[in-house]
Amino acid sequence: MTAHPSSVAVLGPGLMGGSLLMALRRRMPGTKLAAWARRDDALKELKDRGLADVVSIDPAKVVESSEIVVFCVPVENMTSLAESVAGVVGPATLVTDVGSVKGQVVRELEEVFAVHRNFVGSHPMCGSEEAGLAAAREDLYEGAVCAVTPSEKSRPDRVAAASDFWSALGARVITLSPEQHDRAAAMVSHVPHVAASALVETVFASEPVCRTMCAGGFRDTTRVASGAPDLWTGILSSNRAEVARGIGCLIDSLQSIRIALENNDTTRVSDFLRSAAEHRAQIVGQRAT
Amino acid sequence: MTAHPSSVAVLGPGLMGGSLLMALRRRMPGTKLAAWARRDDALKELKDRGLADVVSIDPAKVVESSEIVVFCVPVENMTSLAESVAGVVGPATLVTDVGSVKGQVVRELEEVFAVHRNFVGSHPMCGSEEAGLAAAREDLYEGAVCAVTPSEKSRPDRVAAASDFWSALGARVITLSPEQHDRAAAMVSHVPHVAASALVETVFASEPVCRTMCAGGFRDTTRVASGAPDLWTGILSSNRAEVARGIGCLIDSLQSIRIALENNDTTRVSDFLRSAAEHRAQIVGQRAT
Repeated sequence: MTAHPSSVAVLGPGLMGGSLLMALRRRMPGTKLAAWARRDDALKELKDRGLADVVSIDPAKVVESSEIVVFCVPVENMTSLAESVAGVVGPATLVTDVGSVKGQVVRELEEVFAVHRNFVGSHPMCGSEEAGLAAAREDLYEGAVCAVTPSEKSRPDRVAAASDFWSALGARVITLSPEQHDRAAAMVSHVPHVAASALVETVFASEPVCRTMCAGGFRDTTRVASGAPDLWTGILSSNRAEVARGIGCLIDSLQSIRIALENNDTTRVSDFLRSAAEHRAQIVGQRAT
Repeated sequence: MTAHPSSVAVLGPGLMGGSLLMALRRRMPGTKLAAWARRDDALKELKDRGLADVVSIDPAKVVESSEIVVFCVPVENMTSLAESVAGVVGPATLVTDVGSVKGQVVRELEEVFAVHRNFVGSHPMCGSEEAGLAAAREDLYEGAVCAVTPSEKSRPDRVAAASDFWSALGARVITLSPEQHDRAAAMVSHVPHVAASALVETVFASEPVCRTMCAGGFRDTTRVASGAPDLWTGILSSNRAEVARGIGCLIDSLQSIRIALENNDTTRVSDFLRSAAEHRAQIVGQRAT
């Protein structure tokens, strides 16, 4: 247990950033909160709701003198935003992020913040298909797994500070290399997103009556496909090698079941379904929520 | 609007059959309810909860003198159960079912009930990964799409009676041929089940850290994979040609995105995600729930 930071700057008050401000306000009431957004109206709302003490459309003003800086913008916007504030980030500041892809982000932001080695990557695994400040919730991070992803260039004290920060917000921190993270995130999040989208598109390309017949199972299976297309284009593109590899694994699995069905191999189909149901219980059962 | 049936027999009080008894009790209070189950304890529970007036482990006793008979057993058990009661089903009785596959079931049960042409197939699209009487709910059928699937052998008055029956329980009835139904059900339900199971298996075959990182999106996308393996083996096997075809469509879609990612074709990825998000909104948005 360490002392709370005196000040935190959150850049980008969407689902992740807005929820972060709410969680910080609740869990660290003495901490000064600063927020940057591209638009005035978002900043006005943060002020009106008491979710930030300092707001500005100038990221440098928000970042300067903050003990911890958290980038909560889409992965493809991280680097340019980081470059715009690098000059005012002090030597003692921890810089982290909430991006869904870590290899590219860590590589680029370590470069931007190379002088003081401020940056350590983070990925709290609690996004959803919803987006924006309107969807933010103060308990978003509670019980969520948060990957902290040091590289060989990371300062150990900063890695510890990033872990403490997320732990203090109720997240369950795991430590992975950026590469391990991206491979795993492809399998558990990025490939399922592609699969959900592909299921929607195959149904939509089929007879129109299919649309009428979509029930609860279809809704759940494809829910993530309603995620913001721009955000997810950035995520998939930034992790494209691992996602492509993971799609290949999924295709292999689907192909084996297609062949089993064509061969009327009921035992193989049964074994597959039983194994998947048991493995899902193991995976989901080990989660707190 | 037609008069309620004087008596309904429900064979198999699981999620579908148990919910049907609950809905009938509530919506048709004057109707005599009869229930068959394989096990005495399920029948005792139905009696104790006031969900059936007549119960028996002898299906013929339950079926005789019932105006409507509904088979709520797994698709692979339908035909043998139907054969065991065919001799006592009167000429005026409507026989229907709740099976997730219609081609094979309709073909076989029309044969069993050929003398009086009692049978018309039905598929209320409201199953879930839960199973058994414990998961039953009296509102399961309310707002659900229910496919009624006449063949060219069906008696029009029986088709109308089946439609009226499900409508009276709050379902939204659509009429399809068994073949149309099975093709559509493959796309909207059976292929998504296979995809969800395949996603679980690809994650489980990956680095163990993947299991720790599974979050809400993964849980939703794979929820249906927790469905009863035996039940789903029967469903997939009974509809194997259409499911195999649908898996092929899904593989083609996944393959095209894999190639786009490998080629760093961001426009193609973006178009795909945007199209899927928009199409999902159209599909899900047209549903009442």
